[in-house]
Amino acid sequence: MWLKDAPLIREDERADVNQESLDRIFTIPESNGATLARIEKAISSNLDGFLREHIVAEEKPMPEIEEEFSSVEITEKPFYVSAYTDFILKHLVAQSVHTSSPGFIGHMSSALPYFMLPMSKIITALNQNMVKVETSKAFTPMERQVLGMLHNLVYQRDDTFYKKWLHSPDHALGAFCSGGTIANITALWVARNNILGERAISRKGLHGAIQEAGIKGLVVLVSQRGHYSLLKAVDLLGLGRDNLITIPTDKHHKVDVSVMHDRAMELQDQGYKVLSVVGIAGATETGSVDPLKEIASLGKQLGCHFHVDAAWGGPTLFSEKYKGLLEGIDHADSVTIDAHKQFYVPMGAGMVLFKDPNAMRSVELHAEYIIRRGSRDLGQQSLEGSRPGMALLVHAGLNIIGQKGYEMLIDQGIEKAKYFAQIIEEHDDFELLVRPELNILGYRFAPKWVRECLQSTDNETANWINEKLDFINKNIQKAQRAEGKTFVSRTRIGFEKYNGSQLVYFRVILANPLTKQADLHRVLRHQLKFAGHEIARQILSEIKNRCG
Amino acid sequence: MWLKDAPLIREDERADVNQESLDRIFTIPESNGATLARIEKAISSNLDGFLREHIVAEEKPMPEIEEEFSSVEITEKPFYVSAYTDFILKHLVAQSVHTSSPGFIGHMSSALPYFMLPMSKIITALNQNMVKVETSKAFTPMERQVLGMLHNLVYQRDDTFYKKWLHSPDHALGAFCSGGTIANITALWVARNNILGERAISRKGLHGAIQEAGIKGLVVLVSQRGHYSLLKAVDLLGLGRDNLITIPTDKHHKVDVSVMHDRAMELQDQGYKVLSVVGIAGATETGSVDPLKEIASLGKQLGCHFHVDAAWGGPTLFSEKYKGLLEGIDHADSVTIDAHKQFYVPMGAGMVLFKDPNAMRSVELHAEYIIRRGSRDLGQQSLEGSRPGMALLVHAGLNIIGQKGYEMLIDQGIEKAKYFAQIIEEHDDFELLVRPELNILGYRFAPKWVRECLQSTDNETANWINEKLDFINKNIQKAQRAEGKTFVSRTRIGFEKYNGSQLVYFRVILANPLTKQADLHRVLRHQLKFAGHEIARQILSEIKNRCG
Repeated sequence: MWLKDAPLIREDERADVNQESLDRIFTIPESNGATLARIEKAISSNLDGFLREHIVAEEKPMPEIEEEFSSVEITEKPFYVSAYTDFILKHLVAQSVHTSSPGFIGHMSSALPYFMLPMSKIITALNQNMVKVETSKAFTPMERQVLGMLHNLVYQRDDTFYKKWLHSPDHALGAFCSGGTIANITALWVARNNILGERAISRKGLHGAIQEAGIKGLVVLVSQRGHYSLLKAVDLLGLGRDNLITIPTDKHHKVDVSVMHDRAMELQDQGYKVLSVVGIAGATETGSVDPLKEIASLGKQLGCHFHVDAAWGGPTLFSEKYKGLLEGIDHADSVTIDAHKQFYVPMGAGMVLFKDPNAMRSVELHAEYIIRRGSRDLGQQSLEGSRPGMALLVHAGLNIIGQKGYEMLIDQGIEKAKYFAQIIEEHDDFELLVRPELNILGYRFAPKWVRECLQSTDNETANWINEKLDFINKNIQKAQRAEGKTFVSRTRIGFEKYNGSQLVYFRVILANPLTKQADLHRVLRHQLKFAGHEIARQILSEIKNRCG
Repeated sequence: MWLKDAPLIREDERADVNQESLDRIFTIPESNGATLARIEKAISSNLDGFLREHIVAEEKPMPEIEEEFSSVEITEKPFYVSAYTDFILKHLVAQSVHTSSPGFIGHMSSALPYFMLPMSKIITALNQNMVKVETSKAFTPMERQVLGMLHNLVYQRDDTFYKKWLHSPDHALGAFCSGGTIANITALWVARNNILGERAISRKGLHGAIQEAGIKGLVVLVSQRGHYSLLKAVDLLGLGRDNLITIPTDKHHKVDVSVMHDRAMELQDQGYKVLSVVGIAGATETGSVDPLKEIASLGKQLGCHFHVDAAWGGPTLFSEKYKGLLEGIDHADSVTIDAHKQFYVPMGAGMVLFKDPNAMRSVELHAEYIIRRGSRDLGQQSLEGSRPGMALLVHAGLNIIGQKGYEMLIDQGIEKAKYFAQIIEEHDDFELLVRPELNILGYRFAPKWVRECLQSTDNETANWINEKLDFINKNIQKAQRAEGKTFVSRTRIGFEKYNGSQLVYFRVILANPLTKQADLHRVLRHQLKFAGHEIARQILSEIKNRCG
């Protein structure tokens, strides 16, 4: 039996499968009063209330949760929907993460606009398959329009351009995909096939094409803050992980373009070809934006592809006040933007845009029963095959929230981040480590006297102290997460201020419109509570002793 | 203005965006009487009724639909939810495809069990991100359990095996992904990195690793009925499209393993290394299952990876009666199974399973803020990054439909296909071209006298006739689709019976439990109606003249 220790599923809640019961689950919806129907109603009428009621705050140890999901038997006698639903409520929903809670400011997911839920339901109910027009019909031009709107946001080409290319069967302004990782992979895939010549690379393979080109290999250059999906991309595409060249950043966590230039020259001298330079618009760990205009110039000089990973920061273009931060993005050959981040769409929606409507032809593929040549089938030029009509959610966002609405969301996030940075700076017990450029910032627990000691002491002691602080901060983050009332994430990068030492810090993302100033104060209060625990106090007194 | 010719959106249905309206869409659900809420209710209480009411049968020409989705402006003044919803109902839902209709037997998507909709809603409402435990908590072991259950279905290892590996942080029994294409790519990615040594391939790149191995290149061997995603995979992975070696099939559309063997030997002699032999369990165009056991032996002999693409046919393992068709699948090193096909889950759910829990370590990746080494984060070993908790739907299916329920669905589909094959064979006007092995079959309109003529005439005339029949069948399929009452898909492959000539035929997939025998008769009746149209009659009389 698969449900060990799950007393709420009893033998009499198991069903016999017969023709009638099978027909029923395909045709007759549950009665209004049944568990699942009640959950649906609760979610529709008060989502936050539902989540607060059902998600337990305090974290259960993972091994205990695993115990509930440990049998691999597929039951012959299945469970009634209501019994199963009760189980899911108690063991899965209860132990999930309240990603939309205003005090959970460590995730890239936020609260969603209410209309995203019923719109998602329409997508599921219609169950279109975007791979070909025969299973998606009007969803095909709708998705193309969404890509066109985003293309317009980034590249601002004229009416003639969009009139010509938006619905052209053999061309694509981009691809909709399951997330930013697939988007980044697609961008570099297209770039690879274009740079080596589509025939060479796709027919002979990378090995043959590299031999033919007489080069040592292909390299991709990106800031050391580049997303890990780029590492996945160079591995998958056969370039090799070592050929993702990471470039150091300045103290604002922006890539140093002169170092990027020098490394590129060096690699070219060694016989490598630069496939792509990559700029980041909203680094995952720091929210920083690379100097895109400068990277664009470098790309032009090198004659290589220029990709911008704007998975996070792309929607900043909605803001009159802050879009200047992304200056130069319109020079990019390709741009990744995630919809399930700052477009406030549920998980599973990314996009890659290409400046040139012909770019994606280098990965084009046809088959007889599907994605026929000359058809409008979107599967001709996408990495994925069958996939859902998630683009409708972006379409809905663009039309219901609109430019003004997204602008307000972006502006408020950035201003909230500035406010939080300010209260951290004014606080005696915290140290601001990553000043927000967009709506992401980083800080750690480090009392003023410790920071003063760090500044006046020798290197060895400073490193020792920082290691102790790492330990304390890591534990504060873990304890805060376990308590389940507020949440920040944590990461670890090098800081110039401390001679490049890698420091653990709290990463905060302020994209949830429900997060108010009071929530930010609450986050700090909770952290101080855990910083006051016995072990932390003991370590602090060790530091005090050493600092003298 | 983006909504050209959409009189239902008037200026007074545009909203001002201000703090209040923005707050409202993030917190307050629509009133019960509002359009979107009414749609939700209609979908919940009678999905089929909703679809029948809102999807118009007759196809609108694509350029007209495109017209409605042609502006790339992002509106500054957005639309009220109700106005937008009206637009979507009228222009998108109305022009979508009724994929769950019992008379639509050309798609791989079917009607869904009713509980899939509210369960999908729970996934959207919780909006967990499977990439790391911090944003998915209990969803992580739940997904691992699903992969374990499927692993057990395919490989049937003992309790000790699953106890040891199911929840082991550094191991994976497979990966959940957005669909079969990503699953197939993942399988070959893992195989490539393992066969060349992870260090070599992922560090030096494919070029360096191939040089080091002293080989000419890597090849993948699969039947000519292999899915196009394999072509995508070899392109993406840098192997080159020419290095996907397609092997001819026998008259039952099963790969000829002796030819596969000979080609492999030949390629090895030429200096190539076989990366993988691939077997198909349920070919997309014919539903045929390759002799997996024989391919397994060949793989063993070659010392290469053995992948089975069971995206379609995998769930046949639920059937006591038919699981023998997949004999040998447990020898596969990796297996692709789609959940959004015969697990009756909505679009966006695929899986790849690996026999060896260590296999996926060759693509492992870590980062500081996420997917940390030793963590349980699923993102460590998956191609995709952020992704939704779709595994819950498979979990629900396995527990509510169960082994018995899926068995009934599989058996009924196959038996329905046999029944349909029989009435086609008994029919004077149709020719059965692909006899069903699973629940997929192929046939075309070809009156008895034409078939008799084809058999007695010379090759040249036969080819001429077959081209004429191609034309008629293509047009029948298009007309049937445009009418929107019933639907079959069409494809084109070579048939031994006609000296390998490529013939257009109707592809039928009988997975929808709502499809009854009467629907099958209706499909044929509609086709005969279109076969009676002027142009078809004219061509038939041309054939008659030539046949004499």
